[in-house]
Parts: sequence; structure tokens; C-alpha cells
Amino acid sequence: MTTARVQPTNINGVAVDQLFQTIDAIKAAPAIAKFKFRIRNQWTEGACNNSTVDTYDGAGQNLSRSKPFVLEADEPSVLLGKDTAANPVEHLLHALAACLTTSMVYHAAAQGIQIQEVESSLEGDIDLHGFLELDSNVRNGYQGIQVKFKIKADVPDDQLEKIGQLGPRHSPVFDSLTKGVPVSVTAERL
Amino acid sequence: MTTARVQPTNINGVAVDQLFQTIDAIKAAPAIAKFKFRIRNQWTEGACNNSTVDTYDGAGQNLSRSKPFVLEADEPSVLLGKDTAANPVEHLLHALAACLTTSMVYHAAAQGIQIQEVESSLEGDIDLHGFLELDSNVRNGYQGIQVKFKIKADVPDDQLEKIGQLGPRHSPVFDSLTKGVPVSVTAERL
Repeated sequence: MTTARVQPTNINGVAVDQLFQTIDAIKAAPAIAKFKFRIRNQWTEGACNNSTVDTYDGAGQNLSRSKPFVLEADEPSVLLGKDTAANPVEHLLHALAACLTTSMVYHAAAQGIQIQEVESSLEGDIDLHGFLELDSNVRNGYQGIQVKFKIKADVPDDQLEKIGQLGPRHSPVFDSLTKGVPVSVTAERL
Repeated sequence: MTTARVQPTNINGVAVDQLFQTIDAIKAAPAIAKFKFRIRNQWTEGACNNSTVDTYDGAGQNLSRSKPFVLEADEPSVLLGKDTAANPVEHLLHALAACLTTSMVYHAAAQGIQIQEVESSLEGDIDLHGFLELDSNVRNGYQGIQVKFKIKADVPDDQLEKIGQLGPRHSPVFDSLTKGVPVSVTAERL
């Protein structure tokens, strides 16, 4: 008698069967792994502007999201804004937290590891002497970011530690932010 | 006879009188320039998670936004998500666009330059061979990001070009992303 071992097709809310199909498809046709993400941003006034997320290229196709997503930005009043939305450097922390979390959850799923809960808190330090050009020794951006994860999973301590390392190991935003990205900026008259 | 020249106190929606007061206050008490931004992120399932933006430290105080702002994240279905929100690398583009725009608008205001309109479009390239560990020569993150601004302002061409350079010169997110940031990640059991 043989017993068929049934592999779950959904772990952590990730369709692992589709994930492995994607990997096989990329091995067969490497070009479909190339993605191009994009946004359009519109300034309103002062610190208020918003971005629209709609189309992207990937899997060899021009694709669209289910609907356009609009992301707002503003500054708190102490930074001369109207305090109607998160500010750009807070959005950056969200991008990092979201990417570390999704990368952890997807790669844990690929390894068959079930995760029950994930929370994280992030803090980053900025000294306005940089932005305001008051001290050339102070950078404009974050001087450092601290990320603290709390993970609930029915695994031994050493495996919990390995789960915690999946985010930094795989996350596109973590890689972009820690290693830097070439960014070209052009401007023309509207 | 002398003519008093009235300086506008609001340019581009930025209270320039308060901006100069802030600069004077920082010169008098440099410690108030230190800001700490933070978010809390909660995983839901799969690619779905959300961040809450609420408190921050700055100007020597513990401060709160007018209300907590909740930022969602998800992936499109081709990346095994539910397509309910922008994904982390799209949020990163929003953070960059928003910061470049606000930095441009604020510093133009400080120089007395009025801007009528600003739009930008951003694109970034990612090859999934990195995230999926299919090719160790391919990075996980963005290989490059292209930002194209369109600016409407009643200024000569050379000044328009200078306005376009204000974002890259001052933006905290541009600096963070192009030069890299030290990010520490810890994980403990929930």
C-alpha cells in the first residue's frame, strides 16, 4: 500500500502551486521575469500631491491593476503641511515594511513553513540640517532605519530566526534601500 | 519717498515666513532638527498587510498626526496577490515622487519662485530572477528608476532647469534611495 502525501496548495495565503509554476515558467522563458512598475504623480499645492498606480509590465505583457490606486502625500503642520496624509519618508517606511513582510511570507510558504501572525514596527532618523542645507555634513535622507518584527509560528527558535532573515534576504525594497538604486531625473516645461 | 516691498508669505502653498522661522529656530537650537518617523505594520494574509502612521518625534516633541493614516499593500494576481492595493515597490515609487515634488516646491518657495503645476511619471525595472533566487547575478531590487518631471512656471528655460534640480538636490527619499541607508532588522517571537 502506498500513501499519497497531499501537499497544501495554499500556505500563508500564498498559492504555492502557482508560485512553483511561475518559477518553472521563468526557467523556460527567462524574459517573463522582467517587470516594469510605474506611477504618475500630480502636485496639488504645498506638500500635497498624489500618485496613481495603474499599469505595469510583467510576464511579457502590459497589464493593469484591478482599478487605479491613488496614494496621497502631505506633511504634518510642524513641517508646513496640512496634515491630511502620510509624508514621503513615512511612505518609504511603509514600502519597506510591506516588502519585508511579503518577502518573508512568500518564501516561508515556498519552504512549507506556516506563519500565523506577523507584526513589525519601524523607526527612522532624519536630521533637517540636511534638507535645509544648514550643515553639509548631514545627509538629506534617513541616517538609519530600525525594523523590529514579531512573528507567531509553531516552529523552534532557530527556525523562527531563519524566518526573520527571509525578508532582508529577498525583499526588493530592502535591497533597493540598503544598496542604493541609480535614479535619473529629467524635467521639461509643461 | 520709500516704497516698502511686500514679501508674499505664501508661495506654492508653502508658508515661507514659517519656513524661515523654522530655519532661524534650528540655528538657535540645533537639536530640534532631529526627527524620528515611525510606522507599525500588520500582516493580514498572503501579500496583504497594512501600516499605520500616527506618532513621530520632531522639533523636540513627541507629536501625533491629525489622525492615524492607514496604508495598504497587496500584489496583483500575476504576483499571487488579491490586487486590492499598490504593491511595496509601487509604494517606493510614490515615496520618491512625493518627496522629489515636495522638496522642489518648498525650495522653490524659499527662493521666491512661483510654480503653477508639477507632474511626474516614474518607472522602475525589476527582474524576478533576483527575488526568486534563480540567478545570483540579478539583484532583488530596482535595477534603475527613471523620473520625468513636467513643470509649469513663468520662468526662463535655465531657471526651469534649476527648479528641476531642486528635488534631487534636497529630497530625503532621493538621497536615501540613491545612496543607501543602514537598515537593521530584528525578529522575535510574538
